[in-house]
Amino acid sequence: MDDVTTTVNAYAALSATEPLQKITIERRDLGPHDVLIDIAYAGICHSDIHTVRGEWGEIAYPQVVGHEIVGFVSATGSDVSKHAVGDRVGVGCMVNSCGECKNCLAGEEQYCQKGNIQTYTGVDPADGSITQGGYSEKVVVNEDFVLRVPEALDFAAAAPLLCAGITTYSPLHHWNAGPGKKVAVVGLGGLGHMAVKIAHAMGAEVTVLSQTLSKQEDGLKLGADHYYATSDPATFETLQNEFDLIINTVSAPLDLDAYLSTLDLNGAMVNVGAPPEALPIHVFTLFAGRRTFAGSSIGGIRETQEMLDFCAEHGIVPETELISVDQVNEAYERVLKSDVRYRFVIDIATLA
Amino acid sequence: MDDVTTTVNAYAALSATEPLQKITIERRDLGPHDVLIDIAYAGICHSDIHTVRGEWGEIAYPQVVGHEIVGFVSATGSDVSKHAVGDRVGVGCMVNSCGECKNCLAGEEQYCQKGNIQTYTGVDPADGSITQGGYSEKVVVNEDFVLRVPEALDFAAAAPLLCAGITTYSPLHHWNAGPGKKVAVVGLGGLGHMAVKIAHAMGAEVTVLSQTLSKQEDGLKLGADHYYATSDPATFETLQNEFDLIINTVSAPLDLDAYLSTLDLNGAMVNVGAPPEALPIHVFTLFAGRRTFAGSSIGGIRETQEMLDFCAEHGIVPETELISVDQVNEAYERVLKSDVRYRFVIDIATLA
Repeated sequence: MDDVTTTVNAYAALSATEPLQKITIERRDLGPHDVLIDIAYAGICHSDIHTVRGEWGEIAYPQVVGHEIVGFVSATGSDVSKHAVGDRVGVGCMVNSCGECKNCLAGEEQYCQKGNIQTYTGVDPADGSITQGGYSEKVVVNEDFVLRVPEALDFAAAAPLLCAGITTYSPLHHWNAGPGKKVAVVGLGGLGHMAVKIAHAMGAEVTVLSQTLSKQEDGLKLGADHYYATSDPATFETLQNEFDLIINTVSAPLDLDAYLSTLDLNGAMVNVGAPPEALPIHVFTLFAGRRTFAGSSIGGIRETQEMLDFCAEHGIVPETELISVDQVNEAYERVLKSDVRYRFVIDIATLA
Repeated sequence: MDDVTTTVNAYAALSATEPLQKITIERRDLGPHDVLIDIAYAGICHSDIHTVRGEWGEIAYPQVVGHEIVGFVSATGSDVSKHAVGDRVGVGCMVNSCGECKNCLAGEEQYCQKGNIQTYTGVDPADGSITQGGYSEKVVVNEDFVLRVPEALDFAAAAPLLCAGITTYSPLHHWNAGPGKKVAVVGLGGLGHMAVKIAHAMGAEVTVLSQTLSKQEDGLKLGADHYYATSDPATFETLQNEFDLIINTVSAPLDLDAYLSTLDLNGAMVNVGAPPEALPIHVFTLFAGRRTFAGSSIGGIRETQEMLDFCAEHGIVPETELISVDQVNEAYERVLKSDVRYRFVIDIATLA
């Protein structure tokens, strides 16, 4: 291993309970297939908060999070062929995988049988260090896990596509959202608002199922055709056997049987929200219409590129609020209160 | 309505707690599209027992059950075109449906949006009576819900195909069991042993997951390639990410996460077993491989005919034990103890 490293500013958690603060971290020297990226913007994902607070398991500190990264290539390793200095690029939730298992070979690196290497809290195969995320000035990533960000996309707003975009695009694509299909999106937050935009662009008839009607006007503007409050029991009566596909972005426990009963024949409810609790489900709800309950996790690299190109073609970017790095801790509190429409993006220039 | 009826012998439950006994019931006169069937054999399904004992909800007594029926056409209504006197025919779990909803029009009458008319305990649209099942000498059924039983099939043994056969064939077919696919069958009872035979005939690699190895020899003879005891925790370690499809025939609660973790990328676990309890499921188990949990209910009429023809072509019939009607109550006790390999069939001639 080469031990030449680059010191960069980053915004890190030093413990599960302290506010994030500015530190410096080391980035490894470029291997032959590595790309050095000068990070321009990083989105804030709810997962970042769960992670730094130790809610998804113990982690080592200091830890830099952030897996919605866009920036410019500033150097390339000797054998890099996919990216060149100056390119607009992005990095999402993973930075490597075994490359050899059948899922990797099929382009489904997110389902690598040995576990993909996450952009933060992963063990970097290059040097055994713990991977550090995008709230930092630079990052070094294997070229195979670096995406091209089309010029047509607003650069700051594009950042959340790398997680919120692909996490919703992938199941919409896999379960064939499109013309003639009725798609429900549960929850209108960072993931949900992207699911609405993408499903609408795919040509599906889109319904938002949200706790209240407080974001109805927004939802319809984003591309939803219908909007229902799930706090109203009549909603579930009205929508029996209605949908071909439900994308559930909510990470809290829901009454699955109620939602599943709104699926039409062969309909699928796909969770991208990640409640840690076990959710009870009645098999009889599934019998009535050969319904399925599924989970989907981000997307493969090829599919992530396809998503970026799709969004460029359809003029889709997340709704974002740009903040400086010293606003991150406040932004975390606002994310927890759902007080953001719909995604915070950190201007990494403010880390200098 | 015509009020000419036919009086026939039947074996009925008079209450939730008494043994079944011989009574007479009335069968309606033939409408223009009705077929009169002289029943030759009727299979005993676990559902029959749940139903007569009121375990799936209150029912009206007397009630005749049985939805695995084969017999000969002995008369046809004036407009019947699909069947002729003397034909070998079968009737399964449903005897009618609305015929107008999109699921019925798609040949998926089992998922009729108004609810299909079950062969017993249903409300017969012809006369408003409660439908009475196959433990009887004759039955009158709309021709559209009468199947042709190929000559190649042993007649008595064919009876359970009408429920156990189609209930397993349909998900195997829908989820594309076939060459190159690894299929697990959970539980080796009436449904499970048919799932093994059919999946094997479809060309899949078949694994039985049973509580113990007590039926291993049988399982391998029926067509399984592998056999594991689920009481051995090593089984679930060994089989991580193994299967494309799991057909779960067990009606008791299982540790779904353990079974789901044996699914490969995009794998599906499909319940045909019907536990009344809600089953807990962790979304994270589904995330790891875009896994799905689904339910499947019998099959459509067209698909049931396809199944019968498939079984005839592949020489498949259930393993059965033929009994006389006065052995039914004892057979029920043996079913509850899983003391049958693998399906009881009643010789209806013994009802005379």
